Amino acid sequence: MDNHNHSHGTHKEYSLYELNARMDACRVDPRVKDYLSRCIAFHTFPAPGLLIGAFMVDYALELLGAVPGTDEKLYAVCETQKCAPDALQVIAHCTYGNNRLRIVDIGKFALTINRASDQDVAEGVRVYVDPRKLSRFSIIHTWFTNSPDFDKKTMTNPLSDEIFSAGREILSYERVRIKVEGKKAWKSVTCPKCGEMVPDYSLRSDGLCAACGAAGYYETIS
Amino acid sequence: MDNHNHSHGTHKEYSLYELNARMDACRVDPRVKDYLSRCIAFHTFPAPGLLIGAFMVDYALELLGAVPGTDEKLYAVCETQKCAPDALQVIAHCTYGNNRLRIVDIGKFALTINRASDQDVAEGVRVYVDPRKLSRFSIIHTWFTNSPDFDKKTMTNPLSDEIFSAGREILSYERVRIKVEGKKAWKSVTCPKCGEMVPDYSLRSDGLCAACGAAGYYETIS
Repeated sequence: MDNHNHSHGTHKEYSLYELNARMDACRVDPRVKDYLSRCIAFHTFPAPGLLIGAFMVDYALELLGAVPGTDEKLYAVCETQKCAPDALQVIAHCTYGNNRLRIVDIGKFALTINRASDQDVAEGVRVYVDPRKLSRFSIIHTWFTNSPDFDKKTMTNPLSDEIFSAGREILSYERVRIKVEGKKAWKSVTCPKCGEMVPDYSLRSDGLCAACGAAGYYETIS
Repeated sequence: MDNHNHSHGTHKEYSLYELNARMDACRVDPRVKDYLSRCIAFHTFPAPGLLIGAFMVDYALELLGAVPGTDEKLYAVCETQKCAPDALQVIAHCTYGNNRLRIVDIGKFALTINRASDQDVAEGVRVYVDPRKLSRFSIIHTWFTNSPDFDKKTMTNPLSDEIFSAGREILSYERVRIKVEGKKAWKSVTCPKCGEMVPDYSLRSDGLCAACGAAGYYETIS
């Protein structure tokens, strides 16, 4: 884990020991402390959005009456690509690779969790950072709105302390109904240009795979 | 973790103890065994694509001379949404939420890992399942091509045994150069319809957020 990114300078070094002490001082529930520690290890640093995401997932699970670590399969939608997906992956095991996490890039700090359903729709819980509740938490508000007043050097620890203390107090929820998406049937086909196999639904209209078309993201070094 | 999905019936119950014994019988390297165990716990079951993904990430890291668990930041691109992203997330800590994992949905079982770079481009390693090498591994080939001959009930354990034994023998690699993408600058704006905050670059041309437009994925239960 790249906990100590001196060379890259994108975030402060942190100590898990010190972070634990600060969680205790802010009276974070032991269940959420465990979630937070596992999220941070996965994400490699205590990003503020990750910490808030852990509280969001914990809240959604409680509202749903679901307990992670049981046999039950949960499904999630995350409305932002930033940080929060990792909380869903680590805590609820809705992972990108197991296809139980869908990312809809709306740009909101909001997520929905639902149970498996045999129907076309499922009922779930949507938890979101509520702008009306942020006014009581000035450091979170400053960070959340990406204000130039947020000073990373001096405000990073006060920010996480405010997140630990606020917990669910910055969140609201609503019960929602969402469409259940089925698995796509597919056949394996070989791209005539690169010779690699792809599912038939991934081929472009010209019969080539996406990489031989516009989605190519690399050039080979000869 | 939903290791025992009787009720959903999408995959067989598995025992981590038995799986470990089979990895040993197939002489899986202890380093990869550790990767595999952590990947399975995260993903909640030993999906064949996840197992192959773990060997792919291990191979790419070695070719790159990178050691996970050190201070170094790694970046990855995954060419499929299926299973393999979880191996990148768990082993290389290139996670969806920390923005070091990019998914390009080409539909290929292939991934690229590169180091951080100050330049516009970075050199990396692309590892892929090589169709020319699959012919020696008939069960993997049957599963990989989504052939109707693949019988989940009888062939699931033989498949993972073949994956454990094959290891890197089904993989090829190439050195590649990829574009480095910078962070987008953004301002926080409030959607006039729903009143929630989003980054300005997420607003649609009509001034509404994506959820108030086409990306809405839920209806509220009143």
